[in-house]
Amino acid sequence: MTAHDHASYGIATWLGALDRALAAGEAAAAAALFPAGGFWRDLLAFTWNIKTFEGPGEIGAMLAATIADARPRGWRLAGPIEAEGDGEAAPIAFETASGIGTGRLVMRGGQVSVLLTALDDLRGHEEPRGARRPAGIVHKADRARRTWSENRAAETARLGHEEQPYVVIIGGGQGGIALGARLRQLGVPAIIIEKNARAGDSWRNRYRSLVLHDPVWYDHMPYLNYPENWPVFTPKDKMGDWLEAYAKIFELNIWTSTSCERAHYDAASGIWTVEVVREGRRHVLRPRQLVFATGAYGPPRTIDWPGAADFAGTLMHSSAYQQGAPFAGKRCVVVGAASSAHDVAVDLWEAGGEVTMVQRTPTTVVRSETLMELGFAIYSEEAVARGITVEKADMISAATPFRMFADQQIALYREIRARDADFYARLAASGFALDFGEDDSGLMMKALRTASGYYIDVGASELIASGQIGVVSGAGVARVEAGGLRLEDGRFVPADVIVACTGYQSMNETVAGIVSRQAADAVGPCWGLGSGVRGDPGPWQGELRNMWKPTAVEALWFHGGNLALSRFYSRFVALQLKARMEGIPTPVYGRPAPLSGA
Amino acid sequence: MTAHDHASYGIATWLGALDRALAAGEAAAAAALFPAGGFWRDLLAFTWNIKTFEGPGEIGAMLAATIADARPRGWRLAGPIEAEGDGEAAPIAFETASGIGTGRLVMRGGQVSVLLTALDDLRGHEEPRGARRPAGIVHKADRARRTWSENRAAETARLGHEEQPYVVIIGGGQGGIALGARLRQLGVPAIIIEKNARAGDSWRNRYRSLVLHDPVWYDHMPYLNYPENWPVFTPKDKMGDWLEAYAKIFELNIWTSTSCERAHYDAASGIWTVEVVREGRRHVLRPRQLVFATGAYGPPRTIDWPGAADFAGTLMHSSAYQQGAPFAGKRCVVVGAASSAHDVAVDLWEAGGEVTMVQRTPTTVVRSETLMELGFAIYSEEAVARGITVEKADMISAATPFRMFADQQIALYREIRARDADFYARLAASGFALDFGEDDSGLMMKALRTASGYYIDVGASELIASGQIGVVSGAGVARVEAGGLRLEDGRFVPADVIVACTGYQSMNETVAGIVSRQAADAVGPCWGLGSGVRGDPGPWQGELRNMWKPTAVEALWFHGGNLALSRFYSRFVALQLKARMEGIPTPVYGRPAPLSGA
Repeated sequence: MTAHDHASYGIATWLGALDRALAAGEAAAAAALFPAGGFWRDLLAFTWNIKTFEGPGEIGAMLAATIADARPRGWRLAGPIEAEGDGEAAPIAFETASGIGTGRLVMRGGQVSVLLTALDDLRGHEEPRGARRPAGIVHKADRARRTWSENRAAETARLGHEEQPYVVIIGGGQGGIALGARLRQLGVPAIIIEKNARAGDSWRNRYRSLVLHDPVWYDHMPYLNYPENWPVFTPKDKMGDWLEAYAKIFELNIWTSTSCERAHYDAASGIWTVEVVREGRRHVLRPRQLVFATGAYGPPRTIDWPGAADFAGTLMHSSAYQQGAPFAGKRCVVVGAASSAHDVAVDLWEAGGEVTMVQRTPTTVVRSETLMELGFAIYSEEAVARGITVEKADMISAATPFRMFADQQIALYREIRARDADFYARLAASGFALDFGEDDSGLMMKALRTASGYYIDVGASELIASGQIGVVSGAGVARVEAGGLRLEDGRFVPADVIVACTGYQSMNETVAGIVSRQAADAVGPCWGLGSGVRGDPGPWQGELRNMWKPTAVEALWFHGGNLALSRFYSRFVALQLKARMEGIPTPVYGRPAPLSGA
Repeated sequence: MTAHDHASYGIATWLGALDRALAAGEAAAAAALFPAGGFWRDLLAFTWNIKTFEGPGEIGAMLAATIADARPRGWRLAGPIEAEGDGEAAPIAFETASGIGTGRLVMRGGQVSVLLTALDDLRGHEEPRGARRPAGIVHKADRARRTWSENRAAETARLGHEEQPYVVIIGGGQGGIALGARLRQLGVPAIIIEKNARAGDSWRNRYRSLVLHDPVWYDHMPYLNYPENWPVFTPKDKMGDWLEAYAKIFELNIWTSTSCERAHYDAASGIWTVEVVREGRRHVLRPRQLVFATGAYGPPRTIDWPGAADFAGTLMHSSAYQQGAPFAGKRCVVVGAASSAHDVAVDLWEAGGEVTMVQRTPTTVVRSETLMELGFAIYSEEAVARGITVEKADMISAATPFRMFADQQIALYREIRARDADFYARLAASGFALDFGEDDSGLMMKALRTASGYYIDVGASELIASGQIGVVSGAGVARVEAGGLRLEDGRFVPADVIVACTGYQSMNETVAGIVSRQAADAVGPCWGLGSGVRGDPGPWQGELRNMWKPTAVEALWFHGGNLALSRFYSRFVALQLKARMEGIPTPVYGRPAPLSGA
């Protein structure tokens, strides 16, 4: 314990002290400004990585390794100091050797709670927006003039043929499209590979009644907010149309009806060989960087239940489910009890199916209204009215390290459970098994740790509570028989239709299918925090595994998540790729041991 | 002269005095608050019309006629008081019998200079945006659920067939699309008729090198601003793509490849019979309201020059001109010297043509950079940085009556001519005839008065000054001969190609072609202020003739203008149509004498 542990600072004083310590190159002195429970979260600015450090020990080690390269300076408050919880916080700005940084400083009781540092722009490669936007025309007659549409047509004809893209992005959902838009702004040539016929089809092709479960204020794409008359919850086809329009507006090079078959990285040349099939024809792309933006998940987790071949009815994974109409009047069994299972159950019920849910393990359920009111305070109409733009909300969110977020969520779920006690009692009385995570931290933490086991209630829970959708809970599937499912505890559930809402594998399994088993294993699982709960084994990572940052395989990246995560982190993936394209040094602190040759 | 003429007010005091006079129903007392040179500009709130009143006499007459119906109340400042020119100004808000109003109060030297009142929302029919936006989903399982895409598909199949739209809009450019978006938000069923194959083609089909001459900050469409990386000057094809995406995003019902052949209004039933040809098939629509949104102009003004049939080369109107490539190496003559003539001349020159401009009358030219810096101060990146959103800028603009605007522009052009004296001297030395309007009020006033005779220089003037584009100035065309043009003063201009950049007729000529000569004559010319200059005969109107407001023909409307005018006035056209659909009383003050039966 140092003398600083007992000092009490105001925000400006503390930032001044940090500035002086860093300017003097004194890593230890800077680290000593943090109490034992203080966090430093860095998004590229110091580490060229996405890392959270806890306490002066980890912080000091990071600074000792990065300070000479980062050369941080010019720390200042970039906006007014605001009350935040029981402390105060302010946006900050600073510079490093390679660029401009922004961040947020949160203090509680005179001690720093969180310092967030994020790289915002690369010096000499600032994004051409606002006052730096392109003119769109040279104000001079020019016999060699090429118009915008001629340039676009030439680019489309050239890229992937005479000229190789620097980046290939596999997946044209919100992740690939958001990243594509960021890269285009930074002048990084990229091609997005989308297996469907149109951008946005990854939403359109899902089940009929799907509507986003998160509210509009949380779902903006980069650069272009939804208009103020956009519905709170976006229907899937409207989402598809938005993404398609967005891709056109931002002039993205999307190769639709194109699948990625194989990819191989040649470490010596630093070039990927990516084999794709575009509208039935084989084609090879040779980018320097390959991004998997195939969603937050990998391939469907299809469970090889014994006896499946004997089933007399229809058996499918939820990823293949589109609508309930063909199953009206039939006995429909949904295996699983998370989001897809609930949505599919309602869709089948609405189509006139007789629906039973087989719940293998307990589920975290939250009423949408409640979550909207208590869980999305900074992403709301009220927040907008208070001047909290989505950019500002994202920085506030980013300044909450995952460890701290879990603690906040435990308090939130205590409040939610008290408020909706009647709702939970009715649901439990129907036989539905509820939980709130191993440490009662609720839905968002489940999403971050395992991306499974939760449902934001938009109507299914009432059908379950009232018995209109049956529930068989507490046992897994032992085998499929001709007329239904036999559970592990011997119960039999008759079925004409079985929809396995059994979730998805990790994204690195997609890598196994396209690159190699060796590469997938070197990378290891994606997503999850190492929280130690079932499905998210330790050790503690502090950040989501492998997402949006360097992996153990050179030039292989993962980008994904819901709209909010795709929006925010696409900026950092794009900056990492741009820096590499421009040859800007990117010394990565805390990089996984690299695999040589994938 | 009343005692009030000598009183000196602060903004808040003055507004309080107005509130008391209006609350007491005292039209004369309210009018007496205005000095002789004071303006009241009203956009629907009092008059259900678009009118500017000058001085206490006109204002008192208007108030005496409208105050009982409007029942204005609750006047308040809606934002901070700001310095404006040599006076001060503030946004205001108020209520009327039918809705919510906003506006702006400008005072100079303790006297009111301008009061702007604008209807903002109809009570009970407020726009569903922000906190009133739709949920997008009912949070309840529902066996009768219709998804968003099913509803959209059903609407598309129904509207114009089983169900008639309340409004038909002729023209799917920025005018029709902006109005369509406003009407959709207000729940007014509308079909937009667009002759081209795709929304946005009205831009795409124009000449190759066309780029918007106004900057991006001035060009936003309603509800959805261009992103901050949008170019300053939008290329025509990018504009077309934006409009097409916009129409999709706002779920507009656009019938493309559809032309409007005839329209007839039955005054007894209040129903239009609109004959259209959609993809080659005849179809009849029966709306209650018909809007001409065919641009700021009517049909091309093709001049029936004698001898045209004998011309050995190619002769076309600028509206048919697409690209210069076929004319490389040829002698190209552009007749006219306004915007289209300059753009076409450059396009031909860039393609390798030998270009001569035949200038019949002098032209107002302003360098784009100069106009951007001096003329678009409130529509700029700097304005955005100062918190002047496009909505706020539009209200500041609207609070400048046209009479006052002309005076401001005279001062502006004095500055512009001094600053760019060298530029103008070089241009004049080439033989090009310059003017700045009869009262030296410059380009914007020409645009408002006659929509002709000006050019924002984006490169052509340098070619003219340097002699690379020839100019023959000061005489009209007498006749066409086999090898070129004979001018009225006897000069001969040899030509292989003649492009007549001779402008367009008034919008009411489009009405003549579709409705009847009688209706077109009853409406009279559209656009122009009655300024008394050539091409804009008096008497003084105070507003643009027939635009965005009731005309002499029942249920026939004009909507058009550049992107900025389409954005701003579409709101008022939509409110007028919505009020009529809902049966809200709309007593029009100062309506043109109606034509019975069109």
